[in-house]
Amino acid sequence: MSKRLIFVTGNSNKLKEVKAILSEGGHPIEIDSQSLDIDEIQGTTQEVAKAKCRRAAELTGSACITEDTALCYAALNGLPGPYIKYFMAEVGHEGLNNLLAGFENKAAWALCTFAYSAGPGCEPILFEGRTEGKIVPARGPKVFGWDAVFEPDGTAMTYAEMPAEQKNKLSHRYKALEKLRAYLQTLPAHDPSA
Amino acid sequence: MSKRLIFVTGNSNKLKEVKAILSEGGHPIEIDSQSLDIDEIQGTTQEVAKAKCRRAAELTGSACITEDTALCYAALNGLPGPYIKYFMAEVGHEGLNNLLAGFENKAAWALCTFAYSAGPGCEPILFEGRTEGKIVPARGPKVFGWDAVFEPDGTAMTYAEMPAEQKNKLSHRYKALEKLRAYLQTLPAHDPSA
Repeated sequence: MSKRLIFVTGNSNKLKEVKAILSEGGHPIEIDSQSLDIDEIQGTTQEVAKAKCRRAAELTGSACITEDTALCYAALNGLPGPYIKYFMAEVGHEGLNNLLAGFENKAAWALCTFAYSAGPGCEPILFEGRTEGKIVPARGPKVFGWDAVFEPDGTAMTYAEMPAEQKNKLSHRYKALEKLRAYLQTLPAHDPSA
Repeated sequence: MSKRLIFVTGNSNKLKEVKAILSEGGHPIEIDSQSLDIDEIQGTTQEVAKAKCRRAAELTGSACITEDTALCYAALNGLPGPYIKYFMAEVGHEGLNNLLAGFENKAAWALCTFAYSAGPGCEPILFEGRTEGKIVPARGPKVFGWDAVFEPDGTAMTYAEMPAEQKNKLSHRYKALEKLRAYLQTLPAHDPSA
């Protein structure tokens, strides 16, 4: 018997990756995706993630998972954090470095938050994956968001320079998905809502 | 006959100021205040303002006004913008300057957005007030948000250094309120929903 849930995303590549990772070991989990237009709120990464997942459960009427990504600068006490996509869009890779010109500390962490809700009205549970690193002048292909300016500690490579397989194993996203997978495997195989 | 509306704020000083300005000239406008816990969304200052006012009208079941403030750096294409409160809280006055250390352009604008909704389901109308200036090392009392680091063009003083009367006449907030006042005066004196 399989569990069934909806991954709220408009990105079919993300769906594929999530399906693959969540189905490793244990019993299979059936995942559909649905693209929804949900406003993201302002607040901490946890508040942002919970609000989105809560709303997704209401809209889908189903158990569901949502995903959020943040890039947090140590010198800015975690900001831009959940707002990084706006900074990336407005100032680009060079600007993401320039923001730190006045600060000695270039450390940053990439944070992925998966949220799971068992259904409408069920408080979301969060699974956070965090990868420590630093902000550097862009290296590698510049096609995927801020990957070119984030160098995980001990790798001497930016996310953008890494082979996909290497990145997947140390990425904030993979760490969060691993936690989500472990949790889902503990749920009863027979979904009572099915 | 007077119009009646609700100003959504938990700040009694703001209520007093808004009452005073909106009642200048013309017919009086009755304003009550109500403190509501409304999540702010991420997005442009206009999207943020509209979403809050739309929600406020639903929650109050009444005509209402809401207010939003942003501080927009020219070098960052308008950011931090609606997120300025988080940056102020996390990095303080010095950090607000340090963010621009890597950029020549220190220009910024303070933006106030009042939103008015005639009631639940009525699309909010926006009234924006914008004051041009630049980001400077803090001068004047540091008690009120980022006032000490924003120097409006042509004044040689930061908001924090100005006498209240001078600030009120050139502030982004006053400009937005003036537009709102002018609009409210054009509405029929007899509120059909009363």
